[in-house]
Amino acid sequence: MKIAVDAAGGDYAPQAIVKGAIKAAQDYKDTEVVLVGKKSILTMLAGPYMRKTKNISIVDADEVIEDHEPPVKAVQTKLNSSIVVGTNLVRDGEAAGFVSAGSSGAVAVAALLNLGLAEGAIRPAIGSFINITPPYPVFLIDAGANAECRPEHLVWFARLGNLYVREILGLRAPRIGLLSNGQEDTKGNKLVKDTHKLLRDTSLNFIGNIEGHDILKRAAEVIVTDGFTGNIVLKTIEGICDSWLYAFTQAGQRMAKAYRLQMKSLHEDMDMSAWTKRLDYREYGGACLLGVKGTIIIAHGRSQAKAINNAIRLAHQTAEHNIAEKIKEESSER
Amino acid sequence: MKIAVDAAGGDYAPQAIVKGAIKAAQDYKDTEVVLVGKKSILTMLAGPYMRKTKNISIVDADEVIEDHEPPVKAVQTKLNSSIVVGTNLVRDGEAAGFVSAGSSGAVAVAALLNLGLAEGAIRPAIGSFINITPPYPVFLIDAGANAECRPEHLVWFARLGNLYVREILGLRAPRIGLLSNGQEDTKGNKLVKDTHKLLRDTSLNFIGNIEGHDILKRAAEVIVTDGFTGNIVLKTIEGICDSWLYAFTQAGQRMAKAYRLQMKSLHEDMDMSAWTKRLDYREYGGACLLGVKGTIIIAHGRSQAKAINNAIRLAHQTAEHNIAEKIKEESSER
Repeated sequence: MKIAVDAAGGDYAPQAIVKGAIKAAQDYKDTEVVLVGKKSILTMLAGPYMRKTKNISIVDADEVIEDHEPPVKAVQTKLNSSIVVGTNLVRDGEAAGFVSAGSSGAVAVAALLNLGLAEGAIRPAIGSFINITPPYPVFLIDAGANAECRPEHLVWFARLGNLYVREILGLRAPRIGLLSNGQEDTKGNKLVKDTHKLLRDTSLNFIGNIEGHDILKRAAEVIVTDGFTGNIVLKTIEGICDSWLYAFTQAGQRMAKAYRLQMKSLHEDMDMSAWTKRLDYREYGGACLLGVKGTIIIAHGRSQAKAINNAIRLAHQTAEHNIAEKIKEESSER
Repeated sequence: MKIAVDAAGGDYAPQAIVKGAIKAAQDYKDTEVVLVGKKSILTMLAGPYMRKTKNISIVDADEVIEDHEPPVKAVQTKLNSSIVVGTNLVRDGEAAGFVSAGSSGAVAVAALLNLGLAEGAIRPAIGSFINITPPYPVFLIDAGANAECRPEHLVWFARLGNLYVREILGLRAPRIGLLSNGQEDTKGNKLVKDTHKLLRDTSLNFIGNIEGHDILKRAAEVIVTDGFTGNIVLKTIEGICDSWLYAFTQAGQRMAKAYRLQMKSLHEDMDMSAWTKRLDYREYGGACLLGVKGTIIIAHGRSQAKAINNAIRLAHQTAEHNIAEKIKEESSER
């Protein structure tokens, strides 16, 4: 299965992207990684590995869409940008999925314009795994595609989340929670109160409202919210993880110095890798743009190699489960 | 200065409340703590200290409003409840402020009905310090009083937050940030976009939109948001702090065992008390119900003695700065 990767997008492109892509090609033998970007640079970076690792290839795209560019205009004019070329590989069936850590706005626009909405989909939504809740992550939807929503949109996000988590995590009937400012049915803004009533009438495993502190308790596997709130909550969690990961590493170093320990043995004794894995949201590697015709993974702008590697794996899983096709079935069952 | 404390409210009432109140009476000699609750029980709990510590007294209130009771009805019928009695002490000038860890809905209703809106106030709002951003906390407003808001309400919250942080933290012109799903002026739901334009035209030190990950970076001292989003963000942060405080303590114990260290020396070497202080949101002790005629501090339902002690200190500071009177001046300046 071919997964295209935007080698030009993200804060650490192209080096970290290429590094993560090579690692993915080595780790997952059934994935062929297609690097999309400036051919000359990519040949230089990936060339030595391409001789040894057969499942890497390059598709040339010599333009780059920058984060600050207005997405619609950029997608319509930079036809040879890595984002547009990568999306078109999916449209034309030349790749089963596309991973980009570039401008998420441009990726979403390119997906909508070039792939279109999946049949039966009302709106696209960004679903993001939050992976600090062992043994498995919770899924937040919408994590930022729709700042303004109506109740029927949130019900649709619940259906999408249910479908995705069922397929990817293999849970039969994921618990669906509606993010609110109180557990009682009567709590929430108007949008949430109206959505609550609609969700009660679905066949979903809707467990009612959940609150902010329930997210990390894994009170529900799918957390439904509008894209405004979802984006803020996700970034708040990321912000805390970032600052504590830094502080935690520092504390470990202080500790190692105080007791003349090797950082390596300290890591093992304190089980620090499990800690940093939990704190490092990049571990999961990407959010899925659900509801479009094709597999699109939006990786974090600050993605390093590991995050890209994980995002490629997620793209592979998503494409394998044929989510876009199942959205069609899901919508016809309603 | 007298500060009334609801000895019947909260998960650990009355023991933890009384303990925190006694500590506050010992710590702050200029504060007289008035315990509000069942006299017989409070006499038993606080009696031994009242002989030594002169600045504690008891006011009898033999009813309790439970968390699950509908606030308006409870406040209107349980006239001898600790929440109603405590609020009335403020109304009647017999206490300068009231601290409660009981039903926050009932406290807000009692304050609105018995004290009324401060002159010039549009709406009450809950302002909460988030104290994990040394050297000083950030202030989130509204943290939950108004689930449904209009742009003029958010501008009002910005004014309230500006005033409160200026007075309590002594900052001349606190930076005001509007919580959104992107930094650009064009990002946000309709409420935020409209608020953004209005805030631009005020004399406040408005720095524009801030995102979730900016909260802990202290990108702004005052974070303005609607009560729905604010409540979810605050509880998300609390949830993370809770689970990591627990995990962090466990890691410390594992460490101590592995290296045969005393937990005490480990604490000192890793500077763990600074850590747990940062992680423990209860450290600050309470949120302020701003915009009512009088000082009302809403403490966390799970408040232990330390949180109550801190909440009493915050009530004292708030009353000392005469915030309700300054709201009147603020509103006349607009």
